[in-house]
Amino acid sequence: MAKDLFHEVVKVALQKEGWEITHDPYTVNAFDTTFNIDLGAEKLIGAQRDKELIAVEVKSFIGNSYVYDFHLALGQYLNYIRGMRRKDPGRILFLAVPESAYLSFFTKPDAQAALVDFGINLFTYSDNNSSIVNWLPQQKTQL
Amino acid sequence: MAKDLFHEVVKVALQKEGWEITHDPYTVNAFDTTFNIDLGAEKLIGAQRDKELIAVEVKSFIGNSYVYDFHLALGQYLNYIRGMRRKDPGRILFLAVPESAYLSFFTKPDAQAALVDFGINLFTYSDNNSSIVNWLPQQKTQL
Repeated sequence: MAKDLFHEVVKVALQKEGWEITHDPYTVNAFDTTFNIDLGAEKLIGAQRDKELIAVEVKSFIGNSYVYDFHLALGQYLNYIRGMRRKDPGRILFLAVPESAYLSFFTKPDAQAALVDFGINLFTYSDNNSSIVNWLPQQKTQL
Repeated sequence: MAKDLFHEVVKVALQKEGWEITHDPYTVNAFDTTFNIDLGAEKLIGAQRDKELIAVEVKSFIGNSYVYDFHLALGQYLNYIRGMRRKDPGRILFLAVPESAYLSFFTKPDAQAALVDFGINLFTYSDNNSSIVNWLPQQKTQL
């Protein structure tokens, strides 16, 4: 339930910045449908603004461990990127994380290095007022 | 508790095949110690046989969703590999999964493609008799 709430927060935040929500969910990997059970199928959001196309993986980081949540987000991100390169190569994948989690975890040198090495495009959002705080795309976007 | 059980099963299975358990846990990433909380710090096993050095990430795949468990395992695997390349480049990382989960999930074409694309070295184990069933290393081991 809380997870769905963050999903809605990010949709509103994107719309505030002029993005049109085109897919909810946006699906890319075949095994999300083959094994379409509960937690397994993370619901990406597809959005468009002018000619820009993005997919957004929304994370709450409200679990007990930032490292656990980060590893899960990373595995999903890299596997979705893998699917998108084949099926929808013009679309950019973003990981959406709460600004508070970004400040607590992602600003650490080890986490920053991981973001760079894995080429993770990220934006932070405020769950208080459903807004995007910072867009943090990476230059390098290979696996 | 169940998770620890699988960890012990794999240690015994490795020893049966002549591996010496040299590290338990084997740690590689700095943020496992910075954020050393419960679920966050997956406990790898370090083992040696003659001049072969391996680290093993033990997974039970007993959760509700293979896709969820796979994404978590993938994120951990790729982040541990990233650390090992810097700190312990002579050691090979293996993902250990139950034979039953391998047959149910990893034999699917989409999962096989992911294993190849991400260069994941894997072995399967039997939790009935604490033995290794199949060693399935990949040739390609880049990110």
